[in-house]
Amino acid sequence: MYTLIDGKATAAQIHAELSMEVQNRLNQGLRRPHLAAVLVGHDGASQTYVNNKILACERVGFRSTLIKRESTIREAELLELVRSLNHDQELDGFIVQLPLPGHINAERINEAIDPAKDVDGFHAINLGRMLLNLPGYLPATPAGVIELLRRYNIETEGKNCVILGRSHIVGSPLSVLLARSATPGNCTVTLCHSKTQNLMEHIQRADILVAALGKPGFVRGEWIKKGAVVVDVGTTRVPDASRASGYKLMGDVDFESVAPHCSAITPVPGGVGPMTISMLLRNTLDSANQRHYGG
Amino acid sequence: MYTLIDGKATAAQIHAELSMEVQNRLNQGLRRPHLAAVLVGHDGASQTYVNNKILACERVGFRSTLIKRESTIREAELLELVRSLNHDQELDGFIVQLPLPGHINAERINEAIDPAKDVDGFHAINLGRMLLNLPGYLPATPAGVIELLRRYNIETEGKNCVILGRSHIVGSPLSVLLARSATPGNCTVTLCHSKTQNLMEHIQRADILVAALGKPGFVRGEWIKKGAVVVDVGTTRVPDASRASGYKLMGDVDFESVAPHCSAITPVPGGVGPMTISMLLRNTLDSANQRHYGG
Repeated sequence: MYTLIDGKATAAQIHAELSMEVQNRLNQGLRRPHLAAVLVGHDGASQTYVNNKILACERVGFRSTLIKRESTIREAELLELVRSLNHDQELDGFIVQLPLPGHINAERINEAIDPAKDVDGFHAINLGRMLLNLPGYLPATPAGVIELLRRYNIETEGKNCVILGRSHIVGSPLSVLLARSATPGNCTVTLCHSKTQNLMEHIQRADILVAALGKPGFVRGEWIKKGAVVVDVGTTRVPDASRASGYKLMGDVDFESVAPHCSAITPVPGGVGPMTISMLLRNTLDSANQRHYGG
Repeated sequence: MYTLIDGKATAAQIHAELSMEVQNRLNQGLRRPHLAAVLVGHDGASQTYVNNKILACERVGFRSTLIKRESTIREAELLELVRSLNHDQELDGFIVQLPLPGHINAERINEAIDPAKDVDGFHAINLGRMLLNLPGYLPATPAGVIELLRRYNIETEGKNCVILGRSHIVGSPLSVLLARSATPGNCTVTLCHSKTQNLMEHIQRADILVAALGKPGFVRGEWIKKGAVVVDVGTTRVPDASRASGYKLMGDVDFESVAPHCSAITPVPGGVGPMTISMLLRNTLDSANQRHYGG
């Protein structure tokens, strides 16, 4: 029988811990952690993501600020907004929700964010510090995967870990985190991607398999090593007329066929997904505590 | 029969190309590229490395400056020196030779270097930009490995690449470079290290094997897949009374037993070693040309 890695319950636990830490801050006369989110345009999914982040802030007692801009905003104006947020002493961290309109260079915006307020952990300097095993803000989704492994006491040292997908926000940073000398960590990591040949052979060797490709139901049970731990980062919206939202979330793993082979597995939804916001909040509180970058 | 990947000849070729580019700059009325090296203390190996870098500068027509400091220098003084080099308009790049004395925080020194002059490619922001597949200075030894693969037209796309060793200056960044979407690149990379179990099984699957452990003669012929490409980054000084220097350089690969199984292999010495300085010079010229960070 496999362990269901319950990201929703773990996230709720983390939120309870964060609430307590906020209360401790208030008792010490310190202000609430404060996160701002910049939303450009009216993309439905982006609005949902940002609203969920703002709601999560309220739930744990953070102050939050939602900053909306029209999709016609010029890059220079957005850069100016980023600079003003960098200098806002009342703000611990902020995110600029992606994707941005095509006329804006997202990389330039990302680089303009003060690394000390980069609670998404997307700035090059935070990724570089991760590679050097130095303190810094970790990208939220990879950090969420690490936190699930930690809280479920899953042994990682010396394990063969196979990661499917090399995106800049999940697969690539996670390959660094799981390979480096840390706990969780110390895995022998193989990073697979669209150019990988004989993908199945790699998957079959995995003690820990992380799927982050964005291909619904791609990973099949017959590929899974007996007793493997499977982490499903995929969250693709698939049309579903039977739901009020008109879609359902599907992971990269065919849960029904895969789960029986596993010692532990994350579901979709309710697995890695809820952890991403928790890690964003954690980063924001760390910033308020000046944990990585000092005062 | 295997191809001997001749790093010494390749480095000489690159130096000829660099000399020509310097000449072109001079013909356009531009100044010579200028590299400075900071040497703290009197460690013999460090002196040799720094001297070789200075000599290489002279050979390709770069201006060079050697800055020596006693090992008693305070960290604050060294930081001040770094800041003055950052602001020196006549200087394109500089390196601070490692190791530094124990009372100096090497990480703090590294962070103080202007990323635009970080021609060693060790600054977190350059490593993070590498992870994001953005232009920046690549660490010299991994860049040297990539350059050898490029110039010997070794196919990397879709190949299983196994890297032995996860150091911050070789194994970890090289795992990123070989996995990312680039040419050379697009390998399926497995990063092995001291915690890896069944190391031999990983090595046996390698189409491209990179050894960067610092264990002389560790890799044996019977582990090598037929036709593999083997890159030996190891350079350990082993005592040898028969030589004037008192030592010989040994790689991580037992060349005699490994070479017959290979399609291509780098020797030690004369393989990756000479490429490191070439890549340092390349980075310095790129800085003079304001290639990655603009004016």
